[in-house]
Amino acid sequence: MRLYDGGKAPNPRRVRIFLAEKGIEVPLEPVDMNQLGHKSEAIKRLNPLQRLPVLVLDDGTAVSESVAICRYFEELHPEPPLMGVDAQDKAVVEMWQRRIEMHLLLLIANVFRHAHPAMAEWEVPQIKEFSEANRPKVLASLEWLNEELADRPFMAGERYTIADITAMIALDFMKPSRIELPSHLVHLNRWYDSVKARPSADA
Amino acid sequence: MRLYDGGKAPNPRRVRIFLAEKGIEVPLEPVDMNQLGHKSEAIKRLNPLQRLPVLVLDDGTAVSESVAICRYFEELHPEPPLMGVDAQDKAVVEMWQRRIEMHLLLLIANVFRHAHPAMAEWEVPQIKEFSEANRPKVLASLEWLNEELADRPFMAGERYTIADITAMIALDFMKPSRIELPSHLVHLNRWYDSVKARPSADA
Repeated sequence: MRLYDGGKAPNPRRVRIFLAEKGIEVPLEPVDMNQLGHKSEAIKRLNPLQRLPVLVLDDGTAVSESVAICRYFEELHPEPPLMGVDAQDKAVVEMWQRRIEMHLLLLIANVFRHAHPAMAEWEVPQIKEFSEANRPKVLASLEWLNEELADRPFMAGERYTIADITAMIALDFMKPSRIELPSHLVHLNRWYDSVKARPSADA
Repeated sequence: MRLYDGGKAPNPRRVRIFLAEKGIEVPLEPVDMNQLGHKSEAIKRLNPLQRLPVLVLDDGTAVSESVAICRYFEELHPEPPLMGVDAQDKAVVEMWQRRIEMHLLLLIANVFRHAHPAMAEWEVPQIKEFSEANRPKVLASLEWLNEELADRPFMAGERYTIADITAMIALDFMKPSRIELPSHLVHLNRWYDSVKARPSADA
């Protein structure tokens, strides 16, 4: 088994943090995304979408999509649980995971990809108006999540889960997207400090 | 338990088709989205994002996000399996599910939401250029999926899964988005005919 990794980009980090929380070590195959290593023929054979990370199993099966890779490890190594413990909890964790993906991470990615010069060859055409249209939506989502966190420690409830990983990655991604985390969102800031303080955050 | 349902819209259909494939009956609470029923205070209390469907469990827990609702039923009623049978299969199904969500359904939704007059109050601002920019991406994804289906019956392999439900919903959603399915994509057309012929397609 080996994990074709993509360094600092959000999705490779999601999987490495997940593995660190699980205490699982997987041999990494570094791919330099700055050198467009993910656009190589070798990666294209593993993932026609040419995105990272990709987990290659011992039988040659290539699994891409970060959350699919996480699912594989969650099934094999349920402890500590990061995707829920029973039907109801799994559903609630998946709900939060998806809310944060679609209503936070995706919006931040839209701001970034449609404006940042480094994305000009990747996001064609870049539409600046679309980038700008996503900014107030990001801020609205941050306000909403701040309210949600007023009465619980983590995104999906009392336990740290994959939804916290996705949300932390999203907030980290605000920096290159030039979106500031408003300081008046005290619950969200408290939560962000707490997840950033976990050893896994540096994975 | 009751499912707040939203009629013909893509996400409510995804869940109803999933339930039909499982043979599970859940009491439905119809919400008229044409009358903006999903924008009511009652729905907002269940889902601050004001989207449907929402599953309310007997203890009052509200689960939104279609795939989270499906996950709940998959965990309680594993047969027939629609989200994979073991760690590797679950990962592969989730990979396909997510590929189709992000690289097909989302692109079609972008075409629709940023151009259709009915979406003018929902998608603010509508950016016609963004709608148009997504059209060639949809067609590229259709070409890719056609190749993938050349040597297998279903999106994720030999078995019908949630990835087929999402893909069928996506292709159905092309009609109001005014995107035609090219007839030369013979494998994709064969697959589409086969999933549309299942009784669940009318759910």
